[in-house]
Amino acid sequence: MVIVVDAMGGDFAPQAAVRGALASAERLPAQIVLVGRPQEIEKHLPASAQRPANLQIVAANDVIQMEADPTRGALRRQDASLFVAVDMVRRQEAQAIVSAGNSGALLTLAHTQLGVIEGVRRPGIAAPMISQRGPGVIIDGGANADCQPIHLAQFGLMGSIYAEYALDIEEPRVGLLSIGSEPSKGNSLTRGAFDMLTEMPINFVGNIEADGIFNGQADVTVADGFVGNVALKTAEAMAHFLMGDLHNCLCDGLSGKVAALLLGNKLGSLRQRYDYANYGGAPLLGVQGIAVFSHGRSDERAIASAICVAHRAAEGGVVEHLRQACRQLVVEAN
Amino acid sequence: MVIVVDAMGGDFAPQAAVRGALASAERLPAQIVLVGRPQEIEKHLPASAQRPANLQIVAANDVIQMEADPTRGALRRQDASLFVAVDMVRRQEAQAIVSAGNSGALLTLAHTQLGVIEGVRRPGIAAPMISQRGPGVIIDGGANADCQPIHLAQFGLMGSIYAEYALDIEEPRVGLLSIGSEPSKGNSLTRGAFDMLTEMPINFVGNIEADGIFNGQADVTVADGFVGNVALKTAEAMAHFLMGDLHNCLCDGLSGKVAALLLGNKLGSLRQRYDYANYGGAPLLGVQGIAVFSHGRSDERAIASAICVAHRAAEGGVVEHLRQACRQLVVEAN
Repeated sequence: MVIVVDAMGGDFAPQAAVRGALASAERLPAQIVLVGRPQEIEKHLPASAQRPANLQIVAANDVIQMEADPTRGALRRQDASLFVAVDMVRRQEAQAIVSAGNSGALLTLAHTQLGVIEGVRRPGIAAPMISQRGPGVIIDGGANADCQPIHLAQFGLMGSIYAEYALDIEEPRVGLLSIGSEPSKGNSLTRGAFDMLTEMPINFVGNIEADGIFNGQADVTVADGFVGNVALKTAEAMAHFLMGDLHNCLCDGLSGKVAALLLGNKLGSLRQRYDYANYGGAPLLGVQGIAVFSHGRSDERAIASAICVAHRAAEGGVVEHLRQACRQLVVEAN
Repeated sequence: MVIVVDAMGGDFAPQAAVRGALASAERLPAQIVLVGRPQEIEKHLPASAQRPANLQIVAANDVIQMEADPTRGALRRQDASLFVAVDMVRRQEAQAIVSAGNSGALLTLAHTQLGVIEGVRRPGIAAPMISQRGPGVIIDGGANADCQPIHLAQFGLMGSIYAEYALDIEEPRVGLLSIGSEPSKGNSLTRGAFDMLTEMPINFVGNIEADGIFNGQADVTVADGFVGNVALKTAEAMAHFLMGDLHNCLCDGLSGKVAALLLGNKLGSLRQRYDYANYGGAPLLGVQGIAVFSHGRSDERAIASAICVAHRAAEGGVVEHLRQACRQLVVEAN
């Protein structure tokens, strides 16, 4: 298995990407390929003799900046690290691509270069969400701001397949994010999607509210990309804000500082748990390959866990399972 | 000023409502009227001689249950506490009504009995949101699941007036909740609303993301009722979930317990800050009177702070200011 990493993407590139790739190469039974400016990549690596044999560099001298408008030009930047990396998946030289760079550009390139799986109306981003019952995802995490009911129904199917084959969840429970649990609750989009979801070959558990994401009522939460993105960012912002207040409590006076010492590791793992940058990446489901988005603010560990997400998705054969399930949809529609 | 409280509404009625009203009567320069079954109300009050003179009881023997379908029957339940309470505002015997009961029924009754202010397309719920810069609101908190751009633009205007006259914020900053800060980011609804908001007589600061709510980029956050409700409930659920984990940290082993003792009051005030039940109520803006929704799970303090919200809105003349601003809109449209 080969996983390509866009070495030049993200706020802390290339260091975070290179270090994350190095750590992954030491841990995973996969070829890890760093794509970018060789000189800049080399700076953050040990001398060649000390490198893991499964870590390689492929040269690409151009970089698509974080703030660049992705709809313009991404496709013409054929020497950009992101373009070269995605192209390796297109040419089947790699199974997966990971980038913390310009997410709009990755979206555009994954769509157009890899192509959409037959039967899929809209690829959707499966973004990780924590819950008390373990890992879960919300789909769509932001690829499609305007959706129709059929798109949501397909997100439910794709999310279910991902949860089953990449997250090893048996019969994943799929919930529709809404503002009330009764089928009649929600907006016209969710009411339309509700019936379609009941007809999908998935374990649909009905409408859930935000607390249902966290308490694990569903493994897969379905929403349009606008609502999904708002939910993700609200959860992230609330955790960040609350952790900041807790930090202030623990810095305030001698008693606060002693309490912080006493809590030590427990507090550290609490922080880790709620730090979205450490969750791993979010794959775009519905394209002909594995494309994993990592947070723009990704540090070395975030990149490593995004690579891990890519590895699990590739190992689980998620793309092939999606193809089969969507072929079935096409057959039934005809 | 007279504020009526639906004594029978909410998960902990009548006790929470009665005790909250009693505490408010002792504190506020206003008549507080409890509406409901007198015998059940009396149980939670001191003997008549010891009661504040500004606390009264109005009898209503029927109760609209929390789970009742509000679209059916709420208007026919003329002896229900909620109906009687709203009707006192309609007859101008009171300026404001507070209820922790069936929110759909309150919405229906406020709309139909009080009537909508001329020029207002859709009344919206201004739900309190915490931020690092002080109080703020998100509007609409859930009254309108499907919206058009003009509704969002009006929410911005109404929220701005509320923030100015009830929350005493000068030139409130109004932000549009979206998934990117550039005007082009968002869905078709927010892109349409963006231009309309720039033409409203308000201090529109453009698109904000969820972190902008918490770090105080805006005092008033505009969203459709579906998105607003998802954001509110996600923030609430995340805070609840994280606080639960923190609680477990502090119960775990001797070091955790000692740390909890050391943190003492600081931890208590942190908990209070993130407990949405303590935020006060959410007024429905755009109807001819003040109708404040309190959380179904409201305890005594939550009811008291919802009454405080009602008092500030009435004292600030929010309804009159809304009438003036909306009359202006009607004039300009003609």
